[in-house]
Amino acid sequence: MNIEEFFQLSAGKWFSHRSTHHLAFNQSEDGKSDIIIEPLATDHPEVIKLCQLYEIAPSSVACSARVTWNQTIERNKQKHSGSTVIVSVPDVDNPDEGKILRETGKEAPVIGRYKIGSDGALTLTVKSETMYSEERLWFASPNLRMRARVFKRLDGFSMADFTSEIRMGGTPSTTKVSQTANSST
Amino acid sequence: MNIEEFFQLSAGKWFSHRSTHHLAFNQSEDGKSDIIIEPLATDHPEVIKLCQLYEIAPSSVACSARVTWNQTIERNKQKHSGSTVIVSVPDVDNPDEGKILRETGKEAPVIGRYKIGSDGALTLTVKSETMYSEERLWFASPNLRMRARVFKRLDGFSMADFTSEIRMGGTPSTTKVSQTANSST
Repeated sequence: MNIEEFFQLSAGKWFSHRSTHHLAFNQSEDGKSDIIIEPLATDHPEVIKLCQLYEIAPSSVACSARVTWNQTIERNKQKHSGSTVIVSVPDVDNPDEGKILRETGKEAPVIGRYKIGSDGALTLTVKSETMYSEERLWFASPNLRMRARVFKRLDGFSMADFTSEIRMGGTPSTTKVSQTANSST
Repeated sequence: MNIEEFFQLSAGKWFSHRSTHHLAFNQSEDGKSDIIIEPLATDHPEVIKLCQLYEIAPSSVACSARVTWNQTIERNKQKHSGSTVIVSVPDVDNPDEGKILRETGKEAPVIGRYKIGSDGALTLTVKSETMYSEERLWFASPNLRMRARVFKRLDGFSMADFTSEIRMGGTPSTTKVSQTANSST
């Protein structure tokens, strides 16, 4: 598995179920989402824009995707929706590791790191002055994606969450990479 | 990290919080447990008994532990308690992989496999004619152990669960390996 294959296998529509453990309070919270992961061409305007924000040459991008979600928090039935663009930029000497750029909206942009392990799992780490997040993503089968994350704030470990994601439709997506022309609307 | 170090780091008393995702029904269930993991000497009578059951030479055992739990299922506040003995038997040519023996009570004994990855995570797999289980265990810190498991039956993937385990007391345990003499009562 390389980073391109991981993005390809992730493309499609998923039913996503997350359980969050608030470690200090021994409390948990469930959320369910529909998630669409849509590959973007590396010369897509949103990819170029993100590269400019992070001051990265667009020519060094390996792959990118738009992730769109509609979430319902179980406890209060609150609904949230949103989308973000994710871009991977492999290290020159080892493409199994590299940078992850992400649209962060109003938050300050922080460059994350990715690593594809020998077991095919993808680990994403994000470090800033106030937090540390490490997420491991792997495929239990082509139609079942798993994610486990630890999120630590300056004051100690605060949260762990686990997400099981089932592909909707049942077979790997054949979604084509969006071309600049038809997806910049 | 090797298998002995993983067992050593696991020893102690843990607060364990499990979220189970029933994949076919999009339902989840939470359970909380107190867990005690107590190292056992490799010549402990219970270890010898387990080796005899699985027809494994006791001299090939690397490490073993007794795991005791008191669990409460959140939904119905039902309480369950129990204990089991686990024994690791490294492969001769590569001690980072090997067999896992486990007390299974009334169920038929099934030999599992373990593998310590280059990232220090322990993967346990159990295969039988009717089921397949793969569990990954890792330390986010010495006092925070994580477990993610997929459990598949003949009829397809049926369950995924995630467990966060916080060491009670806050520092790694200094539990001594139980000697045959004082723990066979």
